Amino acid sequence: MTLRAYHLTLNDVANDNPEYLETVFSLANGHFGVRANDPISSNPITGTLINGFYEVAPIIYGEAAVGYAKQRQTILNLPDLRHLNVMTVSGHPFTTSHRTSADLDLRTGVLTEQYQASSQQGETIGIAVESVMGQNLNNYWGVTYTFTAGNYAGPLVVSKSIAVPAAAEAIASADPRKTRMAGMPICKTDFPSPNVQRYHIQTKQSKLSVTMYLAMTAPAQGTLLRYRMDLSDDSAHTLSYQVYVGNVDDHNTIDPLVPTLDNSMQTLKLDSQHFWQQIWAQSEIMVDGHKELDLAIHYNLFQLNQGAGRDGRTAIPAKGLSGSGYEGHYFWDTEMYMLPYFTYTNPAMARQLLLYRYQTLPQAKQRARDMGVEHGALYAWRTINGQEASPFFPAGTAQYHIDADIAYAVGKYYETTKDLDFIEQCGFAIVLETAKFWADFGTWRQIGDQARFEFLTVTGPDEYTALVNNNYYTNRLAKHNFELVVQLAHRIMDDDPNLLASYGVTTADLAHFTQLAAHVYLPYSEDQQINEQDDSFLSKPRWPSDRLTPEHFPLLLHYHPLTIYRYQVAKQADTLLAEYLFPRDISAVQLKREHKYYEGVTTHDSSLSRSIFSILAARMGESEKAYRYFMDTARMDLVNLQKNTADGLHLANLGGSWLALVSGFSGFYLADGVAHVANHLPAELNQLTYRLRVGDSILEIVLNAQETQVTLIEGPTIRVDVNGSLQTLTAKVHTKVQVKVTPTADREAKPVSGDKI
Amino acid sequence: MTLRAYHLTLNDVANDNPEYLETVFSLANGHFGVRANDPISSNPITGTLINGFYEVAPIIYGEAAVGYAKQRQTILNLPDLRHLNVMTVSGHPFTTSHRTSADLDLRTGVLTEQYQASSQQGETIGIAVESVMGQNLNNYWGVTYTFTAGNYAGPLVVSKSIAVPAAAEAIASADPRKTRMAGMPICKTDFPSPNVQRYHIQTKQSKLSVTMYLAMTAPAQGTLLRYRMDLSDDSAHTLSYQVYVGNVDDHNTIDPLVPTLDNSMQTLKLDSQHFWQQIWAQSEIMVDGHKELDLAIHYNLFQLNQGAGRDGRTAIPAKGLSGSGYEGHYFWDTEMYMLPYFTYTNPAMARQLLLYRYQTLPQAKQRARDMGVEHGALYAWRTINGQEASPFFPAGTAQYHIDADIAYAVGKYYETTKDLDFIEQCGFAIVLETAKFWADFGTWRQIGDQARFEFLTVTGPDEYTALVNNNYYTNRLAKHNFELVVQLAHRIMDDDPNLLASYGVTTADLAHFTQLAAHVYLPYSEDQQINEQDDSFLSKPRWPSDRLTPEHFPLLLHYHPLTIYRYQVAKQADTLLAEYLFPRDISAVQLKREHKYYEGVTTHDSSLSRSIFSILAARMGESEKAYRYFMDTARMDLVNLQKNTADGLHLANLGGSWLALVSGFSGFYLADGVAHVANHLPAELNQLTYRLRVGDSILEIVLNAQETQVTLIEGPTIRVDVNGSLQTLTAKVHTKVQVKVTPTADREAKPVSGDKI
Repeated sequence: MTLRAYHLTLNDVANDNPEYLETVFSLANGHFGVRANDPISSNPITGTLINGFYEVAPIIYGEAAVGYAKQRQTILNLPDLRHLNVMTVSGHPFTTSHRTSADLDLRTGVLTEQYQASSQQGETIGIAVESVMGQNLNNYWGVTYTFTAGNYAGPLVVSKSIAVPAAAEAIASADPRKTRMAGMPICKTDFPSPNVQRYHIQTKQSKLSVTMYLAMTAPAQGTLLRYRMDLSDDSAHTLSYQVYVGNVDDHNTIDPLVPTLDNSMQTLKLDSQHFWQQIWAQSEIMVDGHKELDLAIHYNLFQLNQGAGRDGRTAIPAKGLSGSGYEGHYFWDTEMYMLPYFTYTNPAMARQLLLYRYQTLPQAKQRARDMGVEHGALYAWRTINGQEASPFFPAGTAQYHIDADIAYAVGKYYETTKDLDFIEQCGFAIVLETAKFWADFGTWRQIGDQARFEFLTVTGPDEYTALVNNNYYTNRLAKHNFELVVQLAHRIMDDDPNLLASYGVTTADLAHFTQLAAHVYLPYSEDQQINEQDDSFLSKPRWPSDRLTPEHFPLLLHYHPLTIYRYQVAKQADTLLAEYLFPRDISAVQLKREHKYYEGVTTHDSSLSRSIFSILAARMGESEKAYRYFMDTARMDLVNLQKNTADGLHLANLGGSWLALVSGFSGFYLADGVAHVANHLPAELNQLTYRLRVGDSILEIVLNAQETQVTLIEGPTIRVDVNGSLQTLTAKVHTKVQVKVTPTADREAKPVSGDKI
Repeated sequence: MTLRAYHLTLNDVANDNPEYLETVFSLANGHFGVRANDPISSNPITGTLINGFYEVAPIIYGEAAVGYAKQRQTILNLPDLRHLNVMTVSGHPFTTSHRTSADLDLRTGVLTEQYQASSQQGETIGIAVESVMGQNLNNYWGVTYTFTAGNYAGPLVVSKSIAVPAAAEAIASADPRKTRMAGMPICKTDFPSPNVQRYHIQTKQSKLSVTMYLAMTAPAQGTLLRYRMDLSDDSAHTLSYQVYVGNVDDHNTIDPLVPTLDNSMQTLKLDSQHFWQQIWAQSEIMVDGHKELDLAIHYNLFQLNQGAGRDGRTAIPAKGLSGSGYEGHYFWDTEMYMLPYFTYTNPAMARQLLLYRYQTLPQAKQRARDMGVEHGALYAWRTINGQEASPFFPAGTAQYHIDADIAYAVGKYYETTKDLDFIEQCGFAIVLETAKFWADFGTWRQIGDQARFEFLTVTGPDEYTALVNNNYYTNRLAKHNFELVVQLAHRIMDDDPNLLASYGVTTADLAHFTQLAAHVYLPYSEDQQINEQDDSFLSKPRWPSDRLTPEHFPLLLHYHPLTIYRYQVAKQADTLLAEYLFPRDISAVQLKREHKYYEGVTTHDSSLSRSIFSILAARMGESEKAYRYFMDTARMDLVNLQKNTADGLHLANLGGSWLALVSGFSGFYLADGVAHVANHLPAELNQLTYRLRVGDSILEIVLNAQETQVTLIEGPTIRVDVNGSLQTLTAKVHTKVQVKVTPTADREAKPVSGDKI
C-alpha cells in the first residue's frame, strides 16, 4: 500500500484568506464546531457553532400571506474559543498574528498550527497551537499553546476567557447562502474556581440554553485564568485548556454539577484518534495515483463526519459546523447527498439522522395542514426545529419533493440494514405520512383513456425553474414513496399484523397507494426522446448565449428570479438526479441522450450538481467526462470553487464526492439484495479502493484498469454483481472480475466548462 | 324628469362604524383628501391624504434576491384637519361625540353633518359641521362649525390647530389590502399671524415636503387660533376655517409667500358647485325606477372624480384619497377600470392620467433592464413614483400585462379623442416602449408548421393563478400592443415622417411588430371550445367543494398561495376581461360558453370581477344575471360588500360600475369610428340615460324597454350603430330604435351567489 494522504496543510488549500482558512481547518464532532480562528487577531466572524442551538426571530415579509413560515431560525455564532490574550511584561499586547503553518491530521483529528504574533511595538513571538475535539467525549475540545521567543524573549502574561460578545448587527444580504446573525443571546459568566470559567448562554426567543466551561490545566496565577511565563528561562512555555460544551437544554437551567474537566490533551487526543480509526476502518477509501484526490476524499469524509449530528435530535447543517451559512439549517441534501455514505458505512449514524426526521414528524403534520392538505405530513424545506423556516416559498415550501426524499432515504436505510426495529418504531411512520401527503396533494387527470395522477405547482430540485406542473423528479420520487409504503407495510404485516393495524393502515389503503403508484404521471418528451423536467421546461427558450460569460454566474446573483424562470436553464441536476436514484428506469441510450440534453442547459450553480453529472457520465462509460466533473466536486472547498467557502463547507458536496466515487466510478448500487459494482474507473486514476457494508457484510472493493475485485471482509454471505457477473461471496472470499476496456471515444470530449449550457 | 338621487345620508350606507363612515363621507379634489373624521373624538386612523405625498422605506425580505423592488412607497397619513378642541368655561373638554346626521350633496360637493358632543361631566352641545373642498381651487378645504346648546348652554372655548402627530407603530398585517403606516415625517409648525398656523411636513427618506396653512376666519382671542363664544348670548356661534394644502415639493423649501387665505366658505362652495355642475353636464347618468341605484352611480362617479389626480404628476390611488389602503399606490386598474369613464366624458382628465404614465417612462425603461429585458419599458405593478414597489413578484412584477393595459388605454384615448398632439408628444413613446418590451420578452416556439410567439412565466389579472405560460389575457393584450404601435406609427408618418424617424422607428420595425402581432399565441381549449386562461389552467382540479362555504372567502386570507395556485380557481375575470375589451374576437355562442365556464371557477374575491361578468352577461342578453352582478358592484362600498371600506373606497370598482351600465346595459363600444349601442336594459330598471363624448361629439343615450334613443347633443356628425342599425347623426338630431325584446329564458337563472365556483 502506498503512502496515503491524510494531512491537510496550507499548501493544499486555495488561498490564505483568514476566513477561508477558518472554515477549511475547522474542527467539529457533530455536537459543536470550532472554526480555526487566528488566536491573536480579532475576527469579525465568531468562532463556535453548536448543532441545534439557534435563535428565532419573526420573518419579515414585504408582503405577507397566510401560511407563510413565521419564524427565522438561525444558528448562533458563539464566541471564539481559540482566542488568547498575550502581553509582554511591559504591557504590550500582541495584537496581530500570522499563520505560518497548519497541519490537520485526518487520522487523529489533531490540528497543529504555527503562528507568528506581533505587538504594535514590533515585538514578535511564535505560538504553536495544537487542538483536538473530543469525539466520543463529544462535549470537549482541547487546545495547547506553546510559546517560543521571537525578537522578544522576555516574560509573557497569558490570559484566556470566553468573551461576552458585543451586540452584532444583523447581516442583510441579497445572497441567501451567506452567514446571518441572529439576535444576541443572554450570556452570563462566573468562575467556580480560579482555573475555571463557567459561561451560560440563553437565547431570548427560542428559550434554549447551553452551559460551557473553560478550564486551564496549569494553576492560575493572581487573577482568573491568567498565567505568567518567561521565554528566557526554563519555565514551561506550554499552556493547555479544555472547553466543555454542554448539551442544548430547553429548560434554561444551569446544571449545578461541574463536569469532568481533568481530561488531559492526551485523553482527548486518544479519544479522537480512536474515533477516527473506527471511521476509517468502516469507510476507508483510497485513490492510487492521484495524491491530491486521495487527500481530498479523505478530507471530505473527515468533514462530513465532523458535521453530522449524532444524538437523534440534530442533523447535518448545510455547512456542517464549519460556518453559519444557510443559518445552520437542515435541508433535503442530508438525505439525498450525505446519508448514503452513512447508510453504507456507519448505519448507526444513519439511523440517528433519520431519527431526527422522526422526531420532527409532528411539525411536518402540522405543516401539511397549514398548506391545506388534510392528511399526511409535509417536511419543512429548511429548518432546525422542524418548523418551516424558508421565507421564499417558490424555492422553499414548493419543493415538496423533500417528503419523498426522506422516505427514499428511509427505504434505502432499510434495504441496506434490514433494521426492521427502526422501521416499525419510526421509519414506517415517516413513509406512511409522506405517502398520505402525496395521495392528498396529487390530483387525477383523465387524458383520453389514460388516467394520470399528477402533482401541480411544484418546484423540483432545480431552483431556476419554479412552480411548474409535473416535475419529473418530484413525480418519480412520489411514485416511489407510494411503492415503498406498500412494501414496508407488507414487511411489518409479516412481522406483526397488529402493529400495522395500530398505524390505522388497511389493505384498502395499500391497494389505494398501489393504484396511485401505478398512475403517477412521468413526463416524457416524444420529441427529444427523454424524460422531461416538467410539463413546460422543454418548451422554454434556452438561456441567451450572450449571457454565458463568467460574470453572469451564478445566475441567481445577477438576474431576477422571474428572468431565470422563463428560460430553459437549470441550476443543477434535476431529472438526472432521478435517473441516478433509479438506475433501472431507462435504457443506456436514453440516459446518454438525457445527459447530453440536460448538460446543455445546466449551469451547475448549485454545489449539488456536478457529482450527479459525474456519476451518470461514469455509468455511461464516459469516464473522462465523469472524471472532470468529479474533480470539480471532489475539491470544491479546497479550491474554493464556489468562492463562498468562508461561510462554511459545502457539506452535501462532500457527500456527493463519495457518491461520485462509489456510485459513479465503481457503479455501486444495491437492488433486490444484490450489491452491483461496475468498473468505470477513469484512466487518470490507477486504482480505487473502498469499503462499505450491506447489512452486516463488510465489503472491500478494489478497481483498477485490469480488474475489479470485491472482497467480503466480514459478515454473512452476500450476492454481488460485478461488471454484470452475478456471484455469491462468503466470508474472506473475494471475487475478481476482469475489467472491460473503457471505450476511448469520449476521451475526445470537449472540456466540461466549454459545453456548459 | 323625475327627482334624482344626489344626496348621500346616513340612511343610505351600510353601518355606523366610524372608520367606515370616515371613508364613505370623505371629500377630495384629486390633490388631497379629508376623511370624514369625527371632529371631537380622537381617531386611530388619521385624516388627510395628499396624492403623491409618500415616504419610502427599504422593503425587508425574508429572503431577498437580485432585482427585487427595493423601496416601499407609502402615502402619508397626515393629521386630521377636522379636529376641534372645545371646552366649557370651567375647563371641561368635550371628548366624545356622535354623528346624528350626514348629508353629502353630490351636486355641490358640500358635506353637512350634525354631531352631539359630550364632556366627561355629562355636559352636551350640538355641533353642525359643513365642509367643502375647493375643486378648481384645489389647494383648499373649508369648514364651518356651528354650535348649539345641549344640556350645556354656557360659554365655550374653541381652539383648533393641526397637531404634530405622535410616532405611530407600523401596522403589519397579513392582509395586503390594509392600511400601512409609513415612517413619521418631520413636522414643523409656526404661526405667521394669530389666526394662521403654518405647518411644514418633510419626509425623511423620500425628500418631499408640503406646506399647509390653517386659517381661522374669525379673529383669534388671546392665544393662537382660539375663540370664545357664549351659547347663552347672541354672539356668533359659528366658526369657519380654511386649510390650504400646498403642492408636493421635492426641494423641501417653505414658500415664503403665504397663499391667499381669505376665500370665504361661500367662495369655496361656489367653486365646488361650479366644478360639479360641469362634471354632471359631461357625464350625467340617471337610472329611472331605482332610486338606490341612481344614488349609487352618482356617488360612484362623484368619488371617482374626487380621487383622480389632475396634475399629470399623480394618478388614481387604489383607494382614491379616501383611505390609505394599498399604500396609496397606482395600479393597472387606473387604465382598465377607471380611465374609460374619463376618456368618454372628460378627455382632458384622461390625458392628465396618461401623462403621469409618460412622466414615469424613464423608471419603466430602467425596470425592464432590471428584469433582464434589453429593450422597451416595463411599468411598475404598484407605484407612486414610477419605481416598482411590489414586494411579492408572483402577484406583482409578473403581471407584465400592465404594459399592454397602459398601451391599450393610450389607444382608446386616441381612438376617442383623435388627440394626435398627445400621441406624438407622449402616447406613442408609451406604446412604442411597451411594444419593444413584448418583442424582447416574448419567445418564438415552433409547433409543427405553426410558429407561435409566446409569453412565459407570467401572471394574468387573476392573482389566484401565478407564473403560468401564455396567459390568454396577457397574450391578447400584447398582440394589441403590437397592432397599436403600427397603427399609431402610420398615423404619425402621415402627419410628420420626421417625427417618426426621431423615435428611431423604421419600416422594418413596423413589419416586425406586424409579424409578431400575427403570431402571438392565444390558447384555446378544443375540449371546452373556449379560450383558455393559460396553458395549464383547465387541467388543474377544481377548488374542493367542501371549501366553498363563506368562511373560506376570500381565499387569500385563508389559504397559502401555493394551495390556491394549484387549483383551477380565479380571483376575478381574466380571460373574460379580454373578451370584454375585444368584443369582436369571439362568437356569441363562444362567449356564452366562456362566461358559464369561468363563472364556475371564479370567486370574485377581487372587487374588479363582478363588473366584467355583468357587462358580458348583458351582452349575452342575460340581463337579469347582469343586473345581479351589477347590483353588487354598483353599491359595493355603500353596502360594505368587501368588509374593508374602512381602509378606503374601491376606486376601480366605482369605475367598473360605470362600465357595467355603459358597456353592459347599453352595450356601448367604439370601433372604427362607430359608436355602438345595444339595449340590454334589465327589467328591473325603467330607463337609463347617460352622456358621453366621442371626439367633440357629445351623445346622450336613453334606453328603456320600448326604445333606444341616441341624441347628438353637440359637436360634429357621428356614425352610430344602435341595436345593429347603422346611422349617421348630425347635430341635434337623434335616432330612435325600437328595442328588441330581451329573451326571458335567463330570468330563471339561479342567484349569482349560488352558482359561484
